[in-house]
Amino acid sequence: MRLSDLGEFGFLRELERRGLVQRIQNDAAQFAPDLVVTQDALVEGVHFRLDWTSWHDLGYKAAAVNISDLAASGAEPEALIVSLGLPGESEADDVIALYEGIAETGVPVLGGDTTSAERLYLSVTALGRAERVPGRDGARAGDLLVVTGPLGASAAGFYCLQERLTNPCAREHLRPPLRVAEGKELAQSAHAMLDISDGLASDALRIAERSGCRLVIELERVPVAAGVAKVAAHIKQDVYALACAFGEDYELLAAVPEPGRFSVIGRCEEGEGVVFLRDGEPVEFSGWDHFRD
Amino acid sequence: MRLSDLGEFGFLRELERRGLVQRIQNDAAQFAPDLVVTQDALVEGVHFRLDWTSWHDLGYKAAAVNISDLAASGAEPEALIVSLGLPGESEADDVIALYEGIAETGVPVLGGDTTSAERLYLSVTALGRAERVPGRDGARAGDLLVVTGPLGASAAGFYCLQERLTNPCAREHLRPPLRVAEGKELAQSAHAMLDISDGLASDALRIAERSGCRLVIELERVPVAAGVAKVAAHIKQDVYALACAFGEDYELLAAVPEPGRFSVIGRCEEGEGVVFLRDGEPVEFSGWDHFRD
Repeated sequence: MRLSDLGEFGFLRELERRGLVQRIQNDAAQFAPDLVVTQDALVEGVHFRLDWTSWHDLGYKAAAVNISDLAASGAEPEALIVSLGLPGESEADDVIALYEGIAETGVPVLGGDTTSAERLYLSVTALGRAERVPGRDGARAGDLLVVTGPLGASAAGFYCLQERLTNPCAREHLRPPLRVAEGKELAQSAHAMLDISDGLASDALRIAERSGCRLVIELERVPVAAGVAKVAAHIKQDVYALACAFGEDYELLAAVPEPGRFSVIGRCEEGEGVVFLRDGEPVEFSGWDHFRD
Repeated sequence: MRLSDLGEFGFLRELERRGLVQRIQNDAAQFAPDLVVTQDALVEGVHFRLDWTSWHDLGYKAAAVNISDLAASGAEPEALIVSLGLPGESEADDVIALYEGIAETGVPVLGGDTTSAERLYLSVTALGRAERVPGRDGARAGDLLVVTGPLGASAAGFYCLQERLTNPCAREHLRPPLRVAEGKELAQSAHAMLDISDGLASDALRIAERSGCRLVIELERVPVAAGVAKVAAHIKQDVYALACAFGEDYELLAAVPEPGRFSVIGRCEEGEGVVFLRDGEPVEFSGWDHFRD
């Protein structure tokens, strides 16, 4: 059986079944009651292309995607550890620009490892402290689903970079939002929360599976970022395919008893799975899974 | 300026000078008074070759080198976070064997990230708790230098694997020792401590530089692992070049007021740098630096 047959999540479930990893509830692991740790890797040619992104933005993004995992745990980021694999012929100024991009997030780099590799590989660990970690398994029928910002800009930006189109979304793809304050606010009462990294459809399904309930999302209520509709029209894609099935939005999705100041996009019901409704009728989306096309 | 011109440590010093990373005293970062975090990456073709090592041993080694960094901080390992980049056509059974190798160290895997990559890349973060972290900057004139075990087996093993020679050292290269108990014992009184990952010569120099003293090492007192002399003779290398200038020994080197049960190999004096003595006369060695040949 190849990894690509199992898929990333199928493989993770297999590891859990064998007791080789602890049951992973969140992208961030809770190490002590108040301490949260997260690790994400970016690989050249898979997660980024150096002809699209500057070294500075790459550093920023590598830090930001980890800070996003902490935000989804309601944690305040306190430190980063950076592992870097890259060719010896890399320009030192480029790598310094990468660290300057990391520093722009405001979270100090406490250590790490630098090693030679054929292609650039960047793994960041982020540590933070949280008063309350919502997890993914507490959503229940009656909860409202909220997001912290508009979706689809990263997807649209990816296509703009690929097609060399000029559109502000390109920048959104390279510079994900930091939702630390929103995460801490939502964590006070959220029954489940995560950051949207694999697409709303995939990530909502994780909450549904872990919590044992059904998530119903009304497409008309999903906030779509500026510029996405124009790109969607250009590439002849449904605007909601970009907003719900691409990923890398790094907005937070939470199941809450009260929505507060955040946009409501749906609700939790008894049942299982994720249902998207357009004009009250179910529609299909699928998310992004590494190892699968 | 290329990274290879600066070298790994020159580059790290440049990052420190610019305030882009905190002054890194140890391979492990102290996140809270009692909490220690470490991260090490292994890259296919740089740190390992899949025709030399089994997936099981690779998992063991990736965990062990991080546990070694914790041991050097006097810490008890509590959790691992594993980031894995690998081709989608990898066999799931191989990757499960890798996780079984990690599990053999007895430290639980709490989370991580799995992603596709052209070549295998493995980054492990280890978290542990320590009562007292010796650091690298406290060695002083009058301290004795001790090591926790014999050196050179990993170097000899590397050559055996390369030349396809049968020698027990090959296994030592693939299965580094775990010196957690020794690290905790030494940490109670050591003025400086680290694990020998880049070779005794390089690592002793780090203690000398950070502590502002001279380390004097008597070659005759350096314990050499069984089988190393035979390999050294075969490849026409000085046995002490293998024991002092190769690396990946993962024994601990400590500057202590009292040696206790450990082998004394030298002492700290006023001055700077590292001096190796053979029959009372200084000899030269250099260590391993990524990005430099």
